[in-house]
Amino acid sequence: MEQYTAPITKLIEEFAKLPGIGRKTAQRLAFYVIDMKGNEVVELAKAIVNAKKLTKHCKTCGNLTEGDICNICGNFKRDNSIICVVEDVRDIASMERTKEYRGLYHVLHGTISPLDGIGPDEINIKNLISRLNEGVTEVILATNPTIEGEATAVYISRLIKPLGIKVTRIAHGIPVGGDIEYADELTLMRAMEGRREF
Amino acid sequence: MEQYTAPITKLIEEFAKLPGIGRKTAQRLAFYVIDMKGNEVVELAKAIVNAKKLTKHCKTCGNLTEGDICNICGNFKRDNSIICVVEDVRDIASMERTKEYRGLYHVLHGTISPLDGIGPDEINIKNLISRLNEGVTEVILATNPTIEGEATAVYISRLIKPLGIKVTRIAHGIPVGGDIEYADELTLMRAMEGRREF
Repeated sequence: MEQYTAPITKLIEEFAKLPGIGRKTAQRLAFYVIDMKGNEVVELAKAIVNAKKLTKHCKTCGNLTEGDICNICGNFKRDNSIICVVEDVRDIASMERTKEYRGLYHVLHGTISPLDGIGPDEINIKNLISRLNEGVTEVILATNPTIEGEATAVYISRLIKPLGIKVTRIAHGIPVGGDIEYADELTLMRAMEGRREF
Repeated sequence: MEQYTAPITKLIEEFAKLPGIGRKTAQRLAFYVIDMKGNEVVELAKAIVNAKKLTKHCKTCGNLTEGDICNICGNFKRDNSIICVVEDVRDIASMERTKEYRGLYHVLHGTISPLDGIGPDEINIKNLISRLNEGVTEVILATNPTIEGEATAVYISRLIKPLGIKVTRIAHGIPVGGDIEYADELTLMRAMEGRREF
């Protein structure tokens, strides 16, 4: 694309690295940026840098946070006897939209996936086990209903059941092969209500 | 989206302002940014700011440039007796990809569109007229084959013909209602070859 100036070509390349952004979309975005007002452009760039710089993982549950402990772990109104285990931080936002669940979360940041070389030690399971001596009575396994999600749920349930803690799996209701992040509130609520013991 | 931290919510909002980026895509991009390496994020933000800061319009033709004069106007190998008039800077890149045209360009930055309150003075026509005493023998009108593009071509041709300069219109070949930016090289080449006098 030597037709454009170097800074434009560079921006098109940077945009094209983002997921779901092809060459044409990257060009369209780059030209849009050039037509934006100077302060709007700075705003956008700042938001990108700040989101990265100011975002940490909660030391307790792995959720995204600005401080050491996330809003949910730090909220004393939440029921700290239940922990809901999810694959990704985005799943927490989906769960919270149901406004039904009042317990805590634990984010695995992935699933066990031997084909990709991801074993139990590569995801956030150890921290989960270390949280279980704090009066936890139930662990809800809300990994996605995919092969890896199911396998991860089975693995974790086998670790936790010997400790005498109730382990439940989020109910079917979410179509198998689907993704928790995109489930509607009602489906998720049904799935939470219908959870069954492992 | 009070589920996310303030910097993430801010970034989602900023991404959602971009054209063709909906709420879900903006979220996906924001979480992708958080998972990127720190230096990659800075690279992206810098590219955005630099593209805006370092991009100017060529004083002669209105093309994008880092200096005062664009690469095409400043290239002495180009044939400065022909000027190809386009609506948008992106149309120049499409034209250049044909590797057939060796003349200069003039970017209107829009079309005459009375319904939107855009008259001849709102687009870059005056500068075009002032360029015509430099030995220019032909002006090719390569505005889009839309109502506004055609009307703008007719308007400009009426201004230039009395000056004794040949005025041509890019040929049909580009489907009417289409957009020059998205035309393939062959179609554009045919359109350039088959141009006819106004």
